Amino acid sequence: MTRPMVPEQLSSLIRTVGPARRANPAAVRAHLDDLTKPPGSLGHLEALALRLALIYGDPPPPLGRRTVFVLAGDHGVARQGVSAYPPEVTAQMCRNFASGGAAINAIARAVGADVVAVDVGVDAELGDVPGLVHRKVRRGTRDLACEPALTREEVNRAILAGTELVSERAERIDIVALGDMGIGNTTAATALAAAFTGRPVAELVGPGTGISPERLAHKRTLIETALGRVSPHADVLDILAEVGGLEIAGLVGIALGAARAGRAAVMDGFIATAAALAAVRLCPRVRDYLFASHRSVEPGHIALLDALELRPLFDLGLRLGEGTGAALALPILEAGAAILREMATFSSAGVSGPLS
Amino acid sequence: MTRPMVPEQLSSLIRTVGPARRANPAAVRAHLDDLTKPPGSLGHLEALALRLALIYGDPPPPLGRRTVFVLAGDHGVARQGVSAYPPEVTAQMCRNFASGGAAINAIARAVGADVVAVDVGVDAELGDVPGLVHRKVRRGTRDLACEPALTREEVNRAILAGTELVSERAERIDIVALGDMGIGNTTAATALAAAFTGRPVAELVGPGTGISPERLAHKRTLIETALGRVSPHADVLDILAEVGGLEIAGLVGIALGAARAGRAAVMDGFIATAAALAAVRLCPRVRDYLFASHRSVEPGHIALLDALELRPLFDLGLRLGEGTGAALALPILEAGAAILREMATFSSAGVSGPLS
Repeated sequence: MTRPMVPEQLSSLIRTVGPARRANPAAVRAHLDDLTKPPGSLGHLEALALRLALIYGDPPPPLGRRTVFVLAGDHGVARQGVSAYPPEVTAQMCRNFASGGAAINAIARAVGADVVAVDVGVDAELGDVPGLVHRKVRRGTRDLACEPALTREEVNRAILAGTELVSERAERIDIVALGDMGIGNTTAATALAAAFTGRPVAELVGPGTGISPERLAHKRTLIETALGRVSPHADVLDILAEVGGLEIAGLVGIALGAARAGRAAVMDGFIATAAALAAVRLCPRVRDYLFASHRSVEPGHIALLDALELRPLFDLGLRLGEGTGAALALPILEAGAAILREMATFSSAGVSGPLS
Repeated sequence: MTRPMVPEQLSSLIRTVGPARRANPAAVRAHLDDLTKPPGSLGHLEALALRLALIYGDPPPPLGRRTVFVLAGDHGVARQGVSAYPPEVTAQMCRNFASGGAAINAIARAVGADVVAVDVGVDAELGDVPGLVHRKVRRGTRDLACEPALTREEVNRAILAGTELVSERAERIDIVALGDMGIGNTTAATALAAAFTGRPVAELVGPGTGISPERLAHKRTLIETALGRVSPHADVLDILAEVGGLEIAGLVGIALGAARAGRAAVMDGFIATAAALAAVRLCPRVRDYLFASHRSVEPGHIALLDALELRPLFDLGLRLGEGTGAALALPILEAGAAILREMATFSSAGVSGPLS
């Protein structure tokens, strides 16, 4: 059996992602140590500053034009009772995003970010919703408990839709946050996490929006069954087709698009991080542009962050999605950029260095 | 021996601090559970929202007018080699704050906060520094290794200076952050932490800006010696006089002033939290207005947070002070207020609730 090729447009896009090396790491570290503070005393913020300098140059510019992409899609598996909420909530929340009443709208305003809510695969007619961006690939996935959720072609289309969402707006965006909405999508993301990390489903599966132990056991069994169909030779597109989701594939595209445009991409929780890991497996250079925000309550999240070798900035016990945690991280990243851009050095400020 | 009285102006100030109860906690919790998100899915952010509603009312107003108070003072004990930096750095950093080149200036701009840098006790003539606020009580403390650092009267004056700094500006400030600058001040704060929590110095003492194991052992011995002078009957002012600092006493006043004005006060790391705990020991209602920001690298910090029963929002490995961690927390608090103020409810947005 010949291995399927990555479609041409996608593979050419992957080739155009460059590494983040707009500054010399040793020079940035020396710059950080020359600023008026004890060396290393800003901890993780200095690591953020270094990575931002590699993406944007040293000093990084202000990252004031912030966009949270909230990609929405439905999941056939939601009919199996894997979520605490009925599937129609995905469409209802799209209307809520468009009218500005969801958590991500409130939090994005609080941190000075725009929200771009996108229907990539909601199982409802949302053409009448003003403000919602329409990129529907199909009305929800098939039920991954019974059959492949998507075709490779559908996955490809959702990824390309995501990259285009960024490239259309790249000149007006300094930094991107990745958010999701989709009833049932922790089931898909758990399956992806197991497929990408090789860890057992039992270690990764969690309560999502909040389900009983019985439903959790059912969710685990469904995921294990679906993973039984994934060939050891499956590539990233095969895995996304078998057990993924349209909003997840769209977020793969957002991550790719941000990396190609030279913009940092801040992941939210479990779903967005699963998508980001898929993007890195397609195109390892994407990792240079990714930032973890929070550690989610969902147990599989830390396995994904470990696979990406990225450390979360905070753990606020969030388990909502929508990009809420990623939005909260944006001011912290801005602060990381600001120290390189705005702090005085010991010599310029006339401050004495440490005692020898 | 009659116990010394708390001076009249301070004790009358303490009596005017009211509890934070501008909303009914049960009603706020019901409001949070009616917002379009799974109950509790915003984790710690919901706890912040509740506490902010108690301070400001439900919904809380925007907390956009943010001021970081950075109080600076010198420590006689710095001559004992307890810091990695020479004592003149305190004065040099005051000039740096005033000209906008310190870490707190860069970070405050990144989060939309003003910086008010105040000389409460720097051992240098800084009258010529424009932009610095002048409230000098004396030029540095006495060496706490040998004698009481301050008199009760000096402590009282520094506290009152802090409360006045807030009350003069209260109508133009929605929320306050507490920051410090003072070479040698982790020595004073460690002694305060031991005195207030009863924990052994060995558990609390840490490297501050970064010192060798030999200097650390010396620092510990000095602190233990100084604490030997503290009577078991000492009140908060006695303890602050014996082993405190002028910037620390000033921050006690900032915390009191914020509470009296009905404003939330966000603590930075070890020094600011020691001051906040002293304020709570003087006036327990102050705790209603306090928020922890980060968990500092300094080992004694968590003991102070435990004593306050407050949980930090993040741990970024910070050990700088100046209010840097507190400033980073401001957008997160704003987000907590924003969810109550701006999110739709299930019924208003037409979103289905959980499956029964």
